[in-house]
Amino acid sequence: MTDTPEREPWIKSIPVSMTPPALKDNTADVDRLLKGIAKTVDQEEVRISLPLAKKLPSLLRQHHFQVRALLCYGYSAWQVIDVVPPTEAGSAYGLAVDLGTSMIAVRLVDLVTDEVKEETSFLNPQIQVGPDILTRIHFAGQKGGLRELQALLVTRLNQEIQALAERRGASTRNILGAAVAGNTTMTHLFLGLDPYWICREPYIPVLNRPGLIRASELGLGIHQRGVVFVFPNAGSYFGGDLIAGILASGMNQKEDVSILVDVGTNAEVVLGNREWLVACAGAAGPALEGGVASMGMMAGPGVIDKVVIDPATNEFQVRTIDDFPPVGICGSGMIDLVAQLYLAGMIDLRGKYVPEKCGERMRTIDGLEHLFVVFSKDSGTGEALTLSQAEIDTLMRSKAAMPTILTTMIRMIHLDWKDFRRFYVAGTFGSYINPRSAIVLGMLPDLPLDAYEALGNTSLAGATMALRSLRKRKEVDEIRNRVTYVEMNVNQEFMNQFSAAKFIPHTDRSLFPTVP
Amino acid sequence: MTDTPEREPWIKSIPVSMTPPALKDNTADVDRLLKGIAKTVDQEEVRISLPLAKKLPSLLRQHHFQVRALLCYGYSAWQVIDVVPPTEAGSAYGLAVDLGTSMIAVRLVDLVTDEVKEETSFLNPQIQVGPDILTRIHFAGQKGGLRELQALLVTRLNQEIQALAERRGASTRNILGAAVAGNTTMTHLFLGLDPYWICREPYIPVLNRPGLIRASELGLGIHQRGVVFVFPNAGSYFGGDLIAGILASGMNQKEDVSILVDVGTNAEVVLGNREWLVACAGAAGPALEGGVASMGMMAGPGVIDKVVIDPATNEFQVRTIDDFPPVGICGSGMIDLVAQLYLAGMIDLRGKYVPEKCGERMRTIDGLEHLFVVFSKDSGTGEALTLSQAEIDTLMRSKAAMPTILTTMIRMIHLDWKDFRRFYVAGTFGSYINPRSAIVLGMLPDLPLDAYEALGNTSLAGATMALRSLRKRKEVDEIRNRVTYVEMNVNQEFMNQFSAAKFIPHTDRSLFPTVP
Repeated sequence: MTDTPEREPWIKSIPVSMTPPALKDNTADVDRLLKGIAKTVDQEEVRISLPLAKKLPSLLRQHHFQVRALLCYGYSAWQVIDVVPPTEAGSAYGLAVDLGTSMIAVRLVDLVTDEVKEETSFLNPQIQVGPDILTRIHFAGQKGGLRELQALLVTRLNQEIQALAERRGASTRNILGAAVAGNTTMTHLFLGLDPYWICREPYIPVLNRPGLIRASELGLGIHQRGVVFVFPNAGSYFGGDLIAGILASGMNQKEDVSILVDVGTNAEVVLGNREWLVACAGAAGPALEGGVASMGMMAGPGVIDKVVIDPATNEFQVRTIDDFPPVGICGSGMIDLVAQLYLAGMIDLRGKYVPEKCGERMRTIDGLEHLFVVFSKDSGTGEALTLSQAEIDTLMRSKAAMPTILTTMIRMIHLDWKDFRRFYVAGTFGSYINPRSAIVLGMLPDLPLDAYEALGNTSLAGATMALRSLRKRKEVDEIRNRVTYVEMNVNQEFMNQFSAAKFIPHTDRSLFPTVP
Repeated sequence: MTDTPEREPWIKSIPVSMTPPALKDNTADVDRLLKGIAKTVDQEEVRISLPLAKKLPSLLRQHHFQVRALLCYGYSAWQVIDVVPPTEAGSAYGLAVDLGTSMIAVRLVDLVTDEVKEETSFLNPQIQVGPDILTRIHFAGQKGGLRELQALLVTRLNQEIQALAERRGASTRNILGAAVAGNTTMTHLFLGLDPYWICREPYIPVLNRPGLIRASELGLGIHQRGVVFVFPNAGSYFGGDLIAGILASGMNQKEDVSILVDVGTNAEVVLGNREWLVACAGAAGPALEGGVASMGMMAGPGVIDKVVIDPATNEFQVRTIDDFPPVGICGSGMIDLVAQLYLAGMIDLRGKYVPEKCGERMRTIDGLEHLFVVFSKDSGTGEALTLSQAEIDTLMRSKAAMPTILTTMIRMIHLDWKDFRRFYVAGTFGSYINPRSAIVLGMLPDLPLDAYEALGNTSLAGATMALRSLRKRKEVDEIRNRVTYVEMNVNQEFMNQFSAAKFIPHTDRSLFPTVP
């Protein structure tokens, strides 16, 4: 993360040295400062706000016309955010923010050295109103609801920003800008815009391109004249987090055609290269995030993240986070588990248990068939960890979303799997998933394993890129304007695809030659 | 004042008709509106503020995506000021304001029809703090003083704006923008900027180019998102009112070289053409505004505005405004009076009374010689109107400022009087002045009388032009950048010129061949 010629930072702290006024040079204070800045940044247009102009005469004279200017680049000109004594640290920090529905991640970047200095992530405080987006949209429609949701978010963000700054021994006044990426609804709630029409046909956001907004307008606890770049969205179901993902993957710059998927509550897919980008999103349900099974939970100590079943002995080997006794299973563990169950013959291609293969692990609880993944004696909770047939059925429907969307899109653009060189998997989930298990289940196409690349939190990575570089910030708008968002029509063809994808790996075995 | 291709209004009210959203066209509400506007104004960039975006979804749906958009052009893009139902009048008014030290003039312009609808002028309420700029600058330096001066001005302006709107049956919310021209100090006081350094060597304003400011930042009682264009200044003693004057005269567009003078408390001079502009200002004192003589007053009923003295009989003929009995004399009347006194031989070329010529009109009051201009029996006040030698002496010094500055400047640029085709006289004073009398006194150069053109309130005229046309608004900045402001060095050469100009008409009689 060192300075490169391409970086073009849009948040700067620069020393400005002026010749003091004289009878022969009676340029006004503001003009003198702006001229000094213009020379340094090599740009003609520099703007300053009235409140800042007011404090300039005494400040300039007190410091003999040697000051430090803190700057942000707006749409077409540099903006002076503040002017401080030359003796002040004059750091210029920025924030990259990923506004996830569940988790929020914030990075503090020193824009002078271009280093990430601090990072934190925390639960979205709006969860107390509703864990899912739909509940929040409905809540926003109630009296005061929208304001409350925004306040919850901004208050919590501000606490975290304060804490990050304190850890660096910096003032929040030295945080001059931010780049914020989130899905369309989260972006609306952050901006205080009513997401009412987002979830109602024909699914219309209030806006697609928030652009640059002054921190004070959002109540964001950074420098009040600081500039916040909010990622644009391509539609109600294709938000700024995914635009950030495209930026982070770099697929929009490559000659080769790539696939980018982000699997969460929604299955989001982008196909394309430097010439075209096609995107689509569809509901996948919470199953893949471990939200459907009674033993499902978010990653944490004791949570199963890997499962191996010996097909000869049907012995289960489970790996848990930090090697604690197992207490539950996370999404990637669940993919592993179901893929291994299939490979061991314990479930069939419809995802149905094969009792004779499951043996003593198959037991009936409350009249329902359960597979005992961890017996109570080995469990960290004292209770057995089990998976019912109904839970697998839900997972089968969830896992079918991604291949259905992918297949439909690829047919739409008349391409074939083999045309894709890279397959990027975004999201924390993507980082933990075992691609081989996902292929076995037919969730991901049967490409060579080295074509897969897990990118982690691409929303945060993209936000960081846009924060650090004007070129990248502008690239965000280019991506937004280039993406063709395809609404997935749930017609007969889609339903046929969906039905086929509910099998393991798929009814068309030729699509998955490496899966037994 | 009809629409012309060159007009290019920067304040508009336009109907926007949108196709309602559908599954096949799920453009966001804001983007749909901005696209509709962009099409109508034929510009790609249109911006909207967050508070306005918030109210859009319900407004658009309530009116079936048929609305009216109120727009102002910013620096590089159109800004949406408001969106209103199509049924609303949707007028777009603008204000042209001349912020004079003594008088303020405001014009209400309908920017749809491009007509001046209302006009008013009133005393600058800051006069209660101090009649002159210096007193106000000192007052601004006291605790709360600056804020009080700004509040006095803005409160009064808002009352007048409200009254103007009411007279039109319009709402102040339909006033979307303003163009404001004033001298540098008045501009500072309007913006709430401390003018402290303006009157202290080396005379530095806080800023030269205020540019565009949101009405809400100034507390101006028009649409709160309305845009206020504040004229730039070229220095502490060459303000936006004079830049407006140059614009109004059109001298900056002509091939011929012209002179523009504005005579008030200061004598301000601009020389130039479409290639160059040189400006200078110097203190003239209040004498020319009628502020020095005991009988001096501002124009009003019974105020003498014209004097003729028959050289044969020494009979005085005075003309008063509205033919009321004389109560005092205004600035232009004073010029007439002193010129006539000179031509009648009642004062000599030094401006000293010639007692034998004055006859019975010359009397001593409190040991000082006074000329009785109007005897008590003819006076509207019951008291005689008189002019003392001391008062003439002051006038002689005041009248010398303009020719001194003019001569010095013309020498500086190596031109001669005969090179100038037009001589524009700005200001109310300029409209009433008798150019022949001013030539006799040596205040104005001895050019053919038809070279003179009185332009009236050029500050208001220029503000109106900048309000009505983006092209003119941009021309203001071009003028500002082209004007070379020359600081008048009070050196020996200047003092020599000044001494020579204190005579009637001048020590160098060859400069005034037509004056006897």
